[in-house]
Amino acid sequence: MTLTAHSIIAGADAENPSVETATKTAAAAFAAYRATTPAQRGSFLDSIADEIEADRDAIVGAAVSESGLPEARISGEVGRTTGQLRLFAEVVRRGDHLGVRLDPALPDRQPLPRPDLRQRMVPLGPVAVFGASNFPLAFSTAGGDTASALAAGCPVVVKGHPAHPRTGELVARAITRAVAAHGLPAGVFSFVIGSDGQSGIELGQELVRDPRIKAVGFTGSRGGGLALVAAAAARPEPIPVYAEMSSINPVVVLPGALADGDVDALATAYVGSLTLGSGQFCTNPGLLFLPAGEDGDAFLAAVSSAVADAAGQRMLTEGIARAYEAGTATLRDTDGVRLLAQGRDGGELAPAPQVVETATLARPVIDEVFGASGVVVRYTDTDALVPHLERLEGQLTATIHYAPADADAAGRLMPVLEDTDGRILFNGWPTGVEVSHAMVHGGPFPATSDPRSTSVGTLAIERFQRPVCYQNVPADLLPDAVRDDNPWGLTRRVDGELHLP
Amino acid sequence: MTLTAHSIIAGADAENPSVETATKTAAAAFAAYRATTPAQRGSFLDSIADEIEADRDAIVGAAVSESGLPEARISGEVGRTTGQLRLFAEVVRRGDHLGVRLDPALPDRQPLPRPDLRQRMVPLGPVAVFGASNFPLAFSTAGGDTASALAAGCPVVVKGHPAHPRTGELVARAITRAVAAHGLPAGVFSFVIGSDGQSGIELGQELVRDPRIKAVGFTGSRGGGLALVAAAAARPEPIPVYAEMSSINPVVVLPGALADGDVDALATAYVGSLTLGSGQFCTNPGLLFLPAGEDGDAFLAAVSSAVADAAGQRMLTEGIARAYEAGTATLRDTDGVRLLAQGRDGGELAPAPQVVETATLARPVIDEVFGASGVVVRYTDTDALVPHLERLEGQLTATIHYAPADADAAGRLMPVLEDTDGRILFNGWPTGVEVSHAMVHGGPFPATSDPRSTSVGTLAIERFQRPVCYQNVPADLLPDAVRDDNPWGLTRRVDGELHLP
Repeated sequence: MTLTAHSIIAGADAENPSVETATKTAAAAFAAYRATTPAQRGSFLDSIADEIEADRDAIVGAAVSESGLPEARISGEVGRTTGQLRLFAEVVRRGDHLGVRLDPALPDRQPLPRPDLRQRMVPLGPVAVFGASNFPLAFSTAGGDTASALAAGCPVVVKGHPAHPRTGELVARAITRAVAAHGLPAGVFSFVIGSDGQSGIELGQELVRDPRIKAVGFTGSRGGGLALVAAAAARPEPIPVYAEMSSINPVVVLPGALADGDVDALATAYVGSLTLGSGQFCTNPGLLFLPAGEDGDAFLAAVSSAVADAAGQRMLTEGIARAYEAGTATLRDTDGVRLLAQGRDGGELAPAPQVVETATLARPVIDEVFGASGVVVRYTDTDALVPHLERLEGQLTATIHYAPADADAAGRLMPVLEDTDGRILFNGWPTGVEVSHAMVHGGPFPATSDPRSTSVGTLAIERFQRPVCYQNVPADLLPDAVRDDNPWGLTRRVDGELHLP
Repeated sequence: MTLTAHSIIAGADAENPSVETATKTAAAAFAAYRATTPAQRGSFLDSIADEIEADRDAIVGAAVSESGLPEARISGEVGRTTGQLRLFAEVVRRGDHLGVRLDPALPDRQPLPRPDLRQRMVPLGPVAVFGASNFPLAFSTAGGDTASALAAGCPVVVKGHPAHPRTGELVARAITRAVAAHGLPAGVFSFVIGSDGQSGIELGQELVRDPRIKAVGFTGSRGGGLALVAAAAARPEPIPVYAEMSSINPVVVLPGALADGDVDALATAYVGSLTLGSGQFCTNPGLLFLPAGEDGDAFLAAVSSAVADAAGQRMLTEGIARAYEAGTATLRDTDGVRLLAQGRDGGELAPAPQVVETATLARPVIDEVFGASGVVVRYTDTDALVPHLERLEGQLTATIHYAPADADAAGRLMPVLEDTDGRILFNGWPTGVEVSHAMVHGGPFPATSDPRSTSVGTLAIERFQRPVCYQNVPADLLPDAVRDDNPWGLTRRVDGELHLP
């Protein structure tokens, strides 16, 4: 059975909108799209950014209305979205992601000659991208997954998030205009979304099961991500799923950070990171380790006061708000967990922020509660921190608050954090993820379903590629990327050694 | 239940040999092993090669006796095995696999400063490696998967192949001596093998299900590979499986290659590649597309004659020989398939080589028959080749025999082959896989379970790594790989641009 999608933009038969229509046009577009030059593909990515900016007012209006997020935040997200498209355009033009390797022929080698061998990366094929609820722009229709897949040369089929269908459609139309302006086949980009009242789960499953889809990008809940991972694994041809799912982002406050620092300012900053955007960030600091003793008490008092002063902010959807209320209630009702502070109810879909305290690291304390829910664990000795941290699941981030006096303790924590986290940060807060070359927004399971990559930053392009080797291929049949005269001016690895252009 | 392994070398409690003992010691060794410097790890890999060479006579003797392969072949395989260990040592010393990226802080950036961001690759953790039947050295205990995983910084637990237990044990002891000589924890390497008469399938399943194992390398049958893929996907924490499984390695003979070439020599070379090592290569040319017409007839006649002259050679195991006999019989009994030639029976476990002809590309013709079994498909027009090739599953290799007059036809085939194969070669034969930087021994499903990498060549090291980002980490807590003063002399990407050391 092929489900009927409510809306399909681009490359689709408008009379018969379906997942199959979208994937068929994506597959049909693949050969032409992957043959584009770095210059063409870079220009295409730039023009998606231009088209989004050209419709900025309408897009911001729709996203504010659908998400309940403030205009300043949404406006910033437009900049982040267009910025990452332009960053990937730069990456594509530079061409290092093609990973060119040349091992020249050694015709006189004994006992056997070596053939001429050349390697480059090629795109995997059509990619399914699932828009996220909490970033209607930067992690949705033209978000990081779409940008990196298009940069790699993969056509994209976006399953729009039902929490912001109008935003998704406007952005999809912007991409479609860029596709048309570049004379690319319409199937390079499609957007499908469930009809009204339909959750889209079946549509998403159908998309992942479609044999033309060769990889999946997802940002969302653990349950949603695992369902896609299972669907992909059950296909006759299993495919990679990059699901960014669940993280409680531990923060370790070391004693020196309190002794040397401004405890009130630190507490305020913590509550600020915890409640930012109603706590609806994958990198929300859900778990904080705090020293026992007076300094820790002072920090906690300041946290209590700041939380009590904070009002709930409207959450993205009713489902998210209800899940937050249930999760925070479960924490309060758990043996050994003490309610430290609750903020004020902020009205409809705006439940109060909450911080609890416990000494026991076990479920449900180590489960993510999506929203402004914090857990504080007191410790008496930094030696207890290593076993604590080893007990946690894989995380997107881990944070250490530190003063030079804490160097020994921090040094003992580093290898543990490297083994369990995607990003380690000092004296800051994990919310706010820079889009750059060195960023990692990933990490061991269940932070993601595949720790070998990142969903933010330019390394993400590598997720959607695979290597091909050309052995003794005649010069006039070689792709430009691996030709002797290097027409694209690429960095190349020759006999194992990098040569800059 | 924990199974009892027949034999465990290194890092194990000899009184209680089990998979769990091996994985526990591997996990315990991980922190120390991944902290080794490039110089230390390179020296360790070199010394494994040295230790294998020091015991070369015994190892060659055991492998010849257990595999039935000729001494010259096994001796060559020793060179290949030590060569790839030394190649990975070079790669590790160069350090490019660490993928260092630096995005320096931009404290004055508006509207928000950029933090200091540094990225490097870290090893995934303990890796399970399954030895292959057909390469008792180069794809087994100290083969490509072991070398690349150790190079990446992962402890390795090898599940030895039951077809060559003694060879496996001797090589394992060589590795163990290198571990001890470098003062590394014993758990850096373990070798487990089922007790006599046990197939090892349950042992392998237990190994893949063990929560301490973080990735799997496998070379073998499609059924065996898919069972491991399923076991890994069913874990609470799914892990990557690199299974190299099934390929029929299509060869396309274009008309000009016959018109311009020496048809007899080409036919002899084909039969040579098909029957080499009794056809027991993943890259065996199982399917050949041949032009209709006189030149093709002459090629076929020469093939028939060469096959009829060829005697069967002893296959690796009774199971493999029986499967070959069943597979070739099925082909002969399939409607539309004509027996072209059969060689002579070579005695015990040495069934005759076989080549059949057909016009219909469907199962069982497109299924791999492991051994010297060839299928020839005649075509009347090169336009028929694209749909033929698109009908095939993913392949390790595809080969084109070509003369300059075939340039147009070859050009049309290239994008199809790039989309379905790991390696494309011209005017040669796919058997014989160079171990180098540009090699790809991989490809879309079912050639492998994960096309994003290779199991031969230095790119393989990247399979066992994941990225970590360091944000505002104090200088004295940064790992050496990402320190400002670059003590390891690494190539680094700064603000997206590569800088050689």
